[in-house]
Amino acid sequence: MGLNILVAHGGGPTPVINSSLQGVAEAARESGKVDKIYAARFGAEGILKGDLIDLTDVPAATIARLSHTPASAIGSCRRKLTDADYPTVIETLKKFKIDCFFYNGGNDSMDTCNKVNELAKKEGLDLRVIGIPKTIDNDLDITDHCPGFGSAARFSAIGASELALEASGLPIHVVVMEVMGRNAGWLTAASALADRITNCEVLTYLPEQLVDTDQMMADIEREYAKGKGLLVTISEGCCGLDGKPLADSGIVDGFGHVIPGGTAQHISDMIIQQLNIKSRAEKPGLMGRNDMSRISNPDREEAYAVGKFALESAIRGESGYMVAIDAHRGETYSFDLFLAPLERVANVEKKFPLEWIVEGNKIDDKFFEYANPLMGGNFPQYAILR
Amino acid sequence: MGLNILVAHGGGPTPVINSSLQGVAEAARESGKVDKIYAARFGAEGILKGDLIDLTDVPAATIARLSHTPASAIGSCRRKLTDADYPTVIETLKKFKIDCFFYNGGNDSMDTCNKVNELAKKEGLDLRVIGIPKTIDNDLDITDHCPGFGSAARFSAIGASELALEASGLPIHVVVMEVMGRNAGWLTAASALADRITNCEVLTYLPEQLVDTDQMMADIEREYAKGKGLLVTISEGCCGLDGKPLADSGIVDGFGHVIPGGTAQHISDMIIQQLNIKSRAEKPGLMGRNDMSRISNPDREEAYAVGKFALESAIRGESGYMVAIDAHRGETYSFDLFLAPLERVANVEKKFPLEWIVEGNKIDDKFFEYANPLMGGNFPQYAILR
Repeated sequence: MGLNILVAHGGGPTPVINSSLQGVAEAARESGKVDKIYAARFGAEGILKGDLIDLTDVPAATIARLSHTPASAIGSCRRKLTDADYPTVIETLKKFKIDCFFYNGGNDSMDTCNKVNELAKKEGLDLRVIGIPKTIDNDLDITDHCPGFGSAARFSAIGASELALEASGLPIHVVVMEVMGRNAGWLTAASALADRITNCEVLTYLPEQLVDTDQMMADIEREYAKGKGLLVTISEGCCGLDGKPLADSGIVDGFGHVIPGGTAQHISDMIIQQLNIKSRAEKPGLMGRNDMSRISNPDREEAYAVGKFALESAIRGESGYMVAIDAHRGETYSFDLFLAPLERVANVEKKFPLEWIVEGNKIDDKFFEYANPLMGGNFPQYAILR
Repeated sequence: MGLNILVAHGGGPTPVINSSLQGVAEAARESGKVDKIYAARFGAEGILKGDLIDLTDVPAATIARLSHTPASAIGSCRRKLTDADYPTVIETLKKFKIDCFFYNGGNDSMDTCNKVNELAKKEGLDLRVIGIPKTIDNDLDITDHCPGFGSAARFSAIGASELALEASGLPIHVVVMEVMGRNAGWLTAASALADRITNCEVLTYLPEQLVDTDQMMADIEREYAKGKGLLVTISEGCCGLDGKPLADSGIVDGFGHVIPGGTAQHISDMIIQQLNIKSRAEKPGLMGRNDMSRISNPDREEAYAVGKFALESAIRGESGYMVAIDAHRGETYSFDLFLAPLERVANVEKKFPLEWIVEGNKIDDKFFEYANPLMGGNFPQYAILR
């Protein structure tokens, strides 16, 4: 008799979250050691309700389309499991005779994953628990980077390039672009590649540094005065010198995190009011984690490989780990996978290195040496004749 | 001695505006009848300053990259020419011995084009003036559709699909997407293709109908209660029952048009405050007219063909026309080009047919019979397992 496996998604999607699911499912089929492939419908909610999707007989062609599908194909949620929930989780795992449990998520989810693993051990269950990392924010520790980051960063870099060209081709206003990432500035930093790609002026603000808005307005006024157009990219989570978000939606998510809102619009309004310069804010927002046309190929391949590695590790009997990536940035890019203890990644947030932020609004080349291979390289070459 | 030609861009770019420029430039080189190829640096501003870019000897490989370049490669502006400006325009045309003038723009620009043509005639200049249509808004009359619309519509449709999947895969909030198009709802209507592509719930609001926000809130509450997630797409230019924009940036553009602002954010705030449902607004904004990854192939081909046809028409001695498209929607899509008198398209705005709006927030299939071939078809097929 083979193994029964369960995959669940936690938190927001990435453009490649379903590639990892495909990796798990296809490796499970290839292994010949898996009986039932289950997915939790809407993540923790499905586990608590005992509402699982049976993927065992889903056609191979449908599984193969997963890596071309945005958002979570099996559904996700933001419910943070409490101590009171864990017995119900164990009940579902028992009811469906689950041998291997894969939880795909960020640092909150790795905490959940860790707790399920420990509780299962305490209950004497022969359950193998493996965490599959994903987050566009790239804020997980130990792993060189997270699946999902490369694609969202590519969206950020190329999207910002196109907006920089708009701003310089029709220089009638300052364009302010808001980038996702509440506390970690990795994605916003990627937008600064726009100045390398387009040779346009770009000012970039990360949440790791408090923003002195007086200085920011002075910098914007000076750069805009050059008449070449100006793009400002800013993290949704940027705070002012008082340590409070520049803009605040007033909404708190299921994990208790305050959701910032309208940061770009806020800065755009300041530009209009304080500098008397036209400005407009763009907020691609959730598009940044769902745009399948800007997928980074290495990111998609890694996400798939991470899912496959998780399945293979569990079959070997490993438990209590998250799959992590070791990257080799030589002449060509390559990577290895390894297992990192869950307790070392749970609830830890990896911030953008402060030494890669130059004068408050520029990003050092060192970041791009790190990030460009993850974004898939091959950035567009434009014909600018003006 | 050959002809000297001048190309200028007016107003906002489209994802294929540079394809038309490429069409003009390559046809000019192939014709063997053109001496000098000039472009106005930043549109009317360049013409008034006598600041032209000489493209005559730009390498063919650079010209070929134009159709992969967003925003205006030669620069554009929003300056509306006044009667006092026209003598300066004529002066520049004389100074550079321009024989053929191509103005690429929307209905404002076609008005300019028409005035230049009439003034040149009055001055006894042997100038041939041809308008090249472009606008993502698709609001030009006579032509079946405008180059630029198909690509921006594809962005709108697929972008909305990805957001609809996000909203249904993680149904914790109503997602509100703002779509460009101040007065004409063509692009916003394209976003409604998301319900066909994803089978998710989508409510769509066009500027052609005043929005009864009480009814809107009731519809949103009812659809969201189904628990499957909800995407609302809304034109930036939507007005309430009082005929005033739902949200207003307070900014007036160079043509005297008031720029609406934050319509999606405004609706999102209403959802939170009145319905006590979480909501977030996304505003891809200018990205919608610069995203080169969502180009519609037929749109790019048409934009190129329109530029080529403009050049060939001018060489034949035609003047005072805009190139227009006649579309054939048979088993396969094809098109013909023809010349439409400038005075018939200048300043006319083609609105979205009211009979294609169903119950205030759905779009009739007839629109998609019209628009799908222009968007390039081949819409994504997703693997939704939840």
